[in-house]
Amino acid sequence: AGDSLCSGIGAGDSCLWRYHTCTAGSSSKSDGGSSSGSESSKDSSRCSTPVLDADRHERLREKMRRRQDAGDKWFSLEFFPPRTANAAVNLISRFDRMGAGGPLFIDVTWHPAGDPGSDKETSSMIIANTAVNYCGLETILHMTCCNQTKDDITGHLQKAKRLGLKNIMALRGDPIGEEWEEEVDGFNYAVDLVKHIRNEFDDYFDICVAGYPKGHPEAESYEADLRHLKEKVLAGADFIITQLFFRSETFLKFMKDCQAIGITCPIIPGIFPIQGYHSLRQLVKLSKLEVPQEIKDVIEPIKDNDAAIRNYGVELAVSMCRELLDSGMVHGLHFYTLNREVATTDVLKRLGIWKEDPRRPLPWAVSAHPKRRVEDVRPIFWASRPKSYIYRTQEWDDFPNGRWGNSSSPAFGELKDYYLFYLKSKSPREELLKMWGEELTGEESVFEVFTCYITGEPNKNGHKVTCMPWNDDPLATETNLLKEQLEKVNRRGILTINSQPNINGKPSTDPIVGWGPSGGYVFQKAYLEFFTSSEIVMALLKVLKKYELRVNYHIVNVKGQNITNAPDLQPNAVTWGIFPGREIIQPTVVDPVSFLSWKDEAFALWIEQWAKLYEEESPSRMIIQYIHDNYYLVNLVDNDFPLENCLWQVVDDTFELLNSPTQE
Amino acid sequence: AGDSLCSGIGAGDSCLWRYHTCTAGSSSKSDGGSSSGSESSKDSSRCSTPVLDADRHERLREKMRRRQDAGDKWFSLEFFPPRTANAAVNLISRFDRMGAGGPLFIDVTWHPAGDPGSDKETSSMIIANTAVNYCGLETILHMTCCNQTKDDITGHLQKAKRLGLKNIMALRGDPIGEEWEEEVDGFNYAVDLVKHIRNEFDDYFDICVAGYPKGHPEAESYEADLRHLKEKVLAGADFIITQLFFRSETFLKFMKDCQAIGITCPIIPGIFPIQGYHSLRQLVKLSKLEVPQEIKDVIEPIKDNDAAIRNYGVELAVSMCRELLDSGMVHGLHFYTLNREVATTDVLKRLGIWKEDPRRPLPWAVSAHPKRRVEDVRPIFWASRPKSYIYRTQEWDDFPNGRWGNSSSPAFGELKDYYLFYLKSKSPREELLKMWGEELTGEESVFEVFTCYITGEPNKNGHKVTCMPWNDDPLATETNLLKEQLEKVNRRGILTINSQPNINGKPSTDPIVGWGPSGGYVFQKAYLEFFTSSEIVMALLKVLKKYELRVNYHIVNVKGQNITNAPDLQPNAVTWGIFPGREIIQPTVVDPVSFLSWKDEAFALWIEQWAKLYEEESPSRMIIQYIHDNYYLVNLVDNDFPLENCLWQVVDDTFELLNSPTQE
Repeated sequence: AGDSLCSGIGAGDSCLWRYHTCTAGSSSKSDGGSSSGSESSKDSSRCSTPVLDADRHERLREKMRRRQDAGDKWFSLEFFPPRTANAAVNLISRFDRMGAGGPLFIDVTWHPAGDPGSDKETSSMIIANTAVNYCGLETILHMTCCNQTKDDITGHLQKAKRLGLKNIMALRGDPIGEEWEEEVDGFNYAVDLVKHIRNEFDDYFDICVAGYPKGHPEAESYEADLRHLKEKVLAGADFIITQLFFRSETFLKFMKDCQAIGITCPIIPGIFPIQGYHSLRQLVKLSKLEVPQEIKDVIEPIKDNDAAIRNYGVELAVSMCRELLDSGMVHGLHFYTLNREVATTDVLKRLGIWKEDPRRPLPWAVSAHPKRRVEDVRPIFWASRPKSYIYRTQEWDDFPNGRWGNSSSPAFGELKDYYLFYLKSKSPREELLKMWGEELTGEESVFEVFTCYITGEPNKNGHKVTCMPWNDDPLATETNLLKEQLEKVNRRGILTINSQPNINGKPSTDPIVGWGPSGGYVFQKAYLEFFTSSEIVMALLKVLKKYELRVNYHIVNVKGQNITNAPDLQPNAVTWGIFPGREIIQPTVVDPVSFLSWKDEAFALWIEQWAKLYEEESPSRMIIQYIHDNYYLVNLVDNDFPLENCLWQVVDDTFELLNSPTQE
Repeated sequence: AGDSLCSGIGAGDSCLWRYHTCTAGSSSKSDGGSSSGSESSKDSSRCSTPVLDADRHERLREKMRRRQDAGDKWFSLEFFPPRTANAAVNLISRFDRMGAGGPLFIDVTWHPAGDPGSDKETSSMIIANTAVNYCGLETILHMTCCNQTKDDITGHLQKAKRLGLKNIMALRGDPIGEEWEEEVDGFNYAVDLVKHIRNEFDDYFDICVAGYPKGHPEAESYEADLRHLKEKVLAGADFIITQLFFRSETFLKFMKDCQAIGITCPIIPGIFPIQGYHSLRQLVKLSKLEVPQEIKDVIEPIKDNDAAIRNYGVELAVSMCRELLDSGMVHGLHFYTLNREVATTDVLKRLGIWKEDPRRPLPWAVSAHPKRRVEDVRPIFWASRPKSYIYRTQEWDDFPNGRWGNSSSPAFGELKDYYLFYLKSKSPREELLKMWGEELTGEESVFEVFTCYITGEPNKNGHKVTCMPWNDDPLATETNLLKEQLEKVNRRGILTINSQPNINGKPSTDPIVGWGPSGGYVFQKAYLEFFTSSEIVMALLKVLKKYELRVNYHIVNVKGQNITNAPDLQPNAVTWGIFPGREIIQPTVVDPVSFLSWKDEAFALWIEQWAKLYEEESPSRMIIQYIHDNYYLVNLVDNDFPLENCLWQVVDDTFELLNSPTQE
């Protein structure tokens, strides 16, 4: 010990001081430093939803930069709006599936002929809205400007902003008709649109513009086109996505030329995996690109063999992408998917940048709407219908964060339209009838459908039941943990629609029940939700008296008769996680008040999704109607999460009581 | 199964339906029903601080009614304001000690001669303020009205409201001087004050008035006095506390007479345990009461034996209280303590209504200010200085609730005056010198003081160290769990000021670490906070690299140099609880931002509380000053709460590194 101690640290071992240092006075304004080197977001020194971190709070250009700084390679996916409502339903499931591979963003093209800014379910605007809000994908909406008034454009941009879209691909678009003349004060070039967005919306949107590795076909020269590109960047574009090309050299030369004239923003190569002879020819015609001879030589001989062309296209794309990535100049790849799944997914998997991360930031599907970025608590009831939950809460000004009870009394939007395309079953009526029965003979046929859904075994007509009105997907992996018991109780008329096992501190990286950052521990209280007859409810209520201190219950029928032992109508947290250096996250609650809104939806699904498959007055329809009118919806929580789940015992006791001769 | 199922439940077994039923539409407005029969509070259908429940949200009259309905007996305690600042410090510790027995409320008398509404530390107003805010006690402030203007009274009431006082005992007070005349439009009787409070403050205050079991000495008659009492109740008084009396029959007759003329509010008997000959004589003279002959007969012969009189007084009070409680008419007892502790505590313990409930609603001392009723998260740093935390946050408009990170950047009030009477050490300077050393010979003498505080062993001069600048009380029971390790590290210059063990799901009723409602589970991350030399900090930082993913740390010196690995300056929850039917409660966090405010206070205490005990320029003072200037304040959290606490290993590794010859 001596008197030069303090200076000794400062000078002698400066690497110890690599972390954030700040003086006492400037506490809250200072940036958060961390040893992992991640940058904190600009708008606040603290993130209010600890578990979601930067990824949910950053804007696209920041995410791009962070990935680049970290040396992570990424990809993005381009889609066009579908022509029909059915195709829209399919595209949405494709978003969900391809979203699982971890694209940095997707983009939706603008089809001037297809009423792109309208509320139609096939419009560019609504498809992009669905991608952001319901699929939770970072999304770029394309927008073209030629032949449009400033008011039209501003209207589209305002609508996009309102819907939660934060990124615009600013394009000129193809002039309608052969002859095209500049309009004075009109939008003649993409650069006009970029300027307009920056003038009217300041820095709200991230703006992307198109680059042409071979020069725009209408440009005077390659050099002139580069100068136009620089103008677009100077006007406020944040990054560039290129037109497709066939050789990596084409892109790398273009990139160097861009850098040489001072374009420093990210430039993302557009990759087009050849998927078929005709689609290639059409695209080449539209883009006025020339297909290199060596490619033509391969394709022409196999032009009628789709599979062979696709295999070749995948090979070609993989080797070109490898060259791009290996150059060290490319960090992200943009794929023109043509709304198809297989070729692009193949390329991504072979490149090793398709990353199905089983770890979820939260146990439920997060929306990407900026208004919802603090959201981290939801009622468990919509676990299998997250899109319905998002739809019914879209008008909320604030989203519960930290604690559900802090939110004001929740007003759920009415769910009048069960056929909204993002809520629609992926299966058509005929398939549903095969799964759920062309003809029902009694309540027992309904028990059988529920049981087959749980077991995965085919029904008596040999069809597997892969979805239910309350769950459009097969059983979750987590629910599989409960399969045996679920099968047993469904056979006896406890018609389960939601459940989770109790979990007493599994690692947050657990592949089945884990979520949130690594190094944490996740917990659950056992939960069971089911429809059942009033006879069973009577016995159940007697049994529940024995479990009064341990089990919380809510029992309600379609008329709203409601029996509960929830103290003061308080929510019960049933999923929570403890993470290093964070506050507690409790993403799922059983909320007695919301349960009554969910109840309306859960009962209505019997009629809307199931009963209406059958003729009016038909016996099958009357059976479902009877269940709808007379059954109860029950939820049970076992509060003693460190002990063995007692809910199965509760059900066993109930049947024992029902079968006991001494029952009055 | 039949078609009368539904009606079958409703009619056949109506007892099943004793719980809350509500129809779907009226969800959030309906009262929460619960099988335990507790009533939900009126102002909201949901309580935002789930763990604290009714007790913290109800007003005094509601608490009184709830206790009565539940058949719980309760007590309350009356104090008068002290004459000197030192006496105020003692009275505050008495509040803390007697508060532990669970009084329903305390009340503070109004001393017109003592500037009762002023900001002096001995004023009635400030003593009541301290009781509510700093001791967390439901408090009634007395107020007398005669010889005061309406403006004076309104001013006092406004101030009381601002300070968080919710209850007033409205009294006439003794006229100054012998002759007293009614003032026109003035306050002549307590009833005028009751009316004034209701006029000016509506229903804000709960109002208590005095009852005279033998009639007020100045009343025309007992009957006339009863009528006056009824007027006070009709004017808006919520309950009555009586003057003292010597026989239970006196009170019971009075109560029946009150009921006979239609007084239905609670009437609480005032109990005066005789504690000495002279105090009894003085009180009797003031109150113009007559002491029954049988009491005089006992007291007169032993009038010089204080202990004997007090024993008799306790006996007498116990038997009178038993008669009152046994009558079934009395639910609460009000004690005139004369600011003394022993006699009243004895009576309460012998009656079995002194209830030291080891279970705490939260792990820290809750304030009773109405503004703070939602508060349920605090930084751990002030764990041993809760009054300082309350003082420094008194200007906050909102208090963190659910999650610390939700609160806006916390602005802590400056702590300029370390001699505020509610922050002052209970021990005088001479005692502190005995504990902390008349003369320090080096840093090691300081280590020795810290070590003696931990072990409870006397120091080398034979004095036990029962408090430290950072902790005015002996070691907490919980900290005792860590005693052995703490002793070891303090001896070596890791000067600990705060710590908690890790807890992986102990029952919430655990006598040492439990808190919150029963049936829950409590958890903690291990925490250690200490001052140490820069030499040790250098080694510690190297060791911490090995624990990077497991241990969060903050290391800061008095100049504000700050080293941390906290991600994005986020708070780390270190205490939390999971309860049946509730959301997660996380009452304690390590907040990197608040730590810098705490740091200023923690360092200043070296100087303010310790260095200043010694002469300027004295070696002892310079040693403390050196530590203040050169040591670091360190906090460590082990995030892996289910594993064995690794913080001791971190410290061991640090000393090993320091002692290793290969250290560069």
